[in-house]
Amino acid sequence: MSRVYNFSAGPSVSPESVLLQAQQELLEWRDSGMSVMEMSHRGKHFSTIAEELESDLRSLLAVPDNYKVLFLQGGASAQFSLIPQNILKDKTKACYLNTGAWSEKAIKDAQSYCEVIVSASSEDTRFTSIPEASTWLLDEQSAYLHYTSNETIHGVEFQSTPDSNGLPLVSDMSSNILSRKIDVSQYGLIYAGTQKNMGPAGVTVVIVRDDLIGHAGKTTPPVFNYAEQAKNQSMLNTPATYNWYLVGLVLKWLKAQGGVEAIEQLNIAKAAKLYQAIDQSTLYSNPVAVPFRSRMNVPFILGDESLDKPFLAAAAANGLFELKGHRSVGGMRASIYNAMPEAGVLALIDFMAEFERTH
Amino acid sequence: MSRVYNFSAGPSVSPESVLLQAQQELLEWRDSGMSVMEMSHRGKHFSTIAEELESDLRSLLAVPDNYKVLFLQGGASAQFSLIPQNILKDKTKACYLNTGAWSEKAIKDAQSYCEVIVSASSEDTRFTSIPEASTWLLDEQSAYLHYTSNETIHGVEFQSTPDSNGLPLVSDMSSNILSRKIDVSQYGLIYAGTQKNMGPAGVTVVIVRDDLIGHAGKTTPPVFNYAEQAKNQSMLNTPATYNWYLVGLVLKWLKAQGGVEAIEQLNIAKAAKLYQAIDQSTLYSNPVAVPFRSRMNVPFILGDESLDKPFLAAAAANGLFELKGHRSVGGMRASIYNAMPEAGVLALIDFMAEFERTH
Repeated sequence: MSRVYNFSAGPSVSPESVLLQAQQELLEWRDSGMSVMEMSHRGKHFSTIAEELESDLRSLLAVPDNYKVLFLQGGASAQFSLIPQNILKDKTKACYLNTGAWSEKAIKDAQSYCEVIVSASSEDTRFTSIPEASTWLLDEQSAYLHYTSNETIHGVEFQSTPDSNGLPLVSDMSSNILSRKIDVSQYGLIYAGTQKNMGPAGVTVVIVRDDLIGHAGKTTPPVFNYAEQAKNQSMLNTPATYNWYLVGLVLKWLKAQGGVEAIEQLNIAKAAKLYQAIDQSTLYSNPVAVPFRSRMNVPFILGDESLDKPFLAAAAANGLFELKGHRSVGGMRASIYNAMPEAGVLALIDFMAEFERTH
Repeated sequence: MSRVYNFSAGPSVSPESVLLQAQQELLEWRDSGMSVMEMSHRGKHFSTIAEELESDLRSLLAVPDNYKVLFLQGGASAQFSLIPQNILKDKTKACYLNTGAWSEKAIKDAQSYCEVIVSASSEDTRFTSIPEASTWLLDEQSAYLHYTSNETIHGVEFQSTPDSNGLPLVSDMSSNILSRKIDVSQYGLIYAGTQKNMGPAGVTVVIVRDDLIGHAGKTTPPVFNYAEQAKNQSMLNTPATYNWYLVGLVLKWLKAQGGVEAIEQLNIAKAAKLYQAIDQSTLYSNPVAVPFRSRMNVPFILGDESLDKPFLAAAAANGLFELKGHRSVGGMRASIYNAMPEAGVLALIDFMAEFERTH
């Protein structure tokens, strides 16, 4: 078949121009005589790729000079354990906001390293909202406040940076990094797996303020010690070189689109159209309170569960794939990351209308 | 330029047919409508890729049923810390053989978790040999005996499986896995980064006997807990999906070459020719004692250090790249992994003879 519209929550759709460039360069990168995946990570060709990767990410997010940008392995889930190991310092407590499945996982793993204070939780709303900031329990003896800026499964997103009342703010931005403008200087640490808005799985970006690192204990593996990796440009050991290259291509694509500000406008438009279609229908509904709806992951249910299978089958027949919702939530989920073209969202909306008309 | 002969120690040369297949499938894998790097790791297409990856590796190495095969992230260096975390169990000591730079790193990192007994060391020979097994100090209260089966930097390789006197045998096989026949049942744990004999960097293979896992403490991150990952087919979190696919292609290529036994014969022939050329010359020499010379990494020095730069320049002009030795050893190093064709080794030998004649 030809290429489809892929609404997978991650790994997820890549810009087609990125895939075409990777294809064209697969056997030989520029005049190097070899594939990027065959290059020594210490050589001049890969050094160019690595330097551009970091400088492009710094420029796209306007990362201040007093922040390190690391490209690690293990996924954001590894960071659930590595963040407390690296930045608790002499503290024994950390605050976490619980706004969905990914917050819950971060909390569970952090509990092996410190006392976790759940500052607020929207579990009582089945994670369809975000608790009022005025109700948050922020303990000033805590090492940091952690939150998940976008809940991929529940489709809940912070629309602005929360006020941490002076605690270093730590954010899992795996599923919305580079999709909206942020002010990095408001954060202590930002981390994200690459497989949603930055390319293939296999790289974990950690952006961390200088003063927070250098305090890991000796049982933190050196390759996961932020200070050690910062000193070595994330090459304390062999990095996932080909993945770095692919992420770099995605960043260059994003710059060519006009950067984060431009893509944010597109993301606003795409999400607005899809939510409008859901809200105006009688068949589909989205459970999330309007102010907290995610621009990246749009879960929706059909009024009649027995229509789920026919919906997915008909969608696939129309070239619309990976719409099945996460099993913990049920129904459908359309992930519409940066690389999902507006045409894909419009095709989904048209299909949904036609399905509703005929069912 | 056209593709060169790439003697990099890792990341390193890939089979050209693998690159061609990856190139051809880059925008769409089979009839999936998407690139492998865009696929959900939970979907049916990627499940096929993942299952074939494991079954091909099991079949190539004849892995017994009572061993788990894991595909993790972080590189072999991460395992230096994760092996003691996972398999020390109730022991407080572990034995390590010190045969080169990679053994030294493994020893250093393990010391954060247990008392390391250096059972033997060839440091006094500048790592040009392997101490006699009869002299090894094997402490029966130790959790395991660790050794590095091939020292990538020093060019020293174990030619047979050491006798651990009953201790679970743990081996870093990063630079010679799949290059020679081994009996997995003699090991407790085998680990290897993929970037030498298995494809691109970004995957770490861990083959571990069932009875050794399940004893990690709660401070071991779940994604690096062997038992947790084994229960989840190495998908406790999103794996490096595209890397798994590329490694899978390399394994299928190796099967098509006749498997490990066939490639071992080629490796023996390639290494023998190169060492013979070195030994017969008056310009080049290899410092490693003959019985311990690596089939994978062949370091050699030129009698006159001032010839190093002209040698590298002339080699590059002849399409022979990445021959510079590691800075800790100096001179040259030719890494001739499975994917280096015999023609590449012969071209190097011809060039070396011509350079010697003219210098």
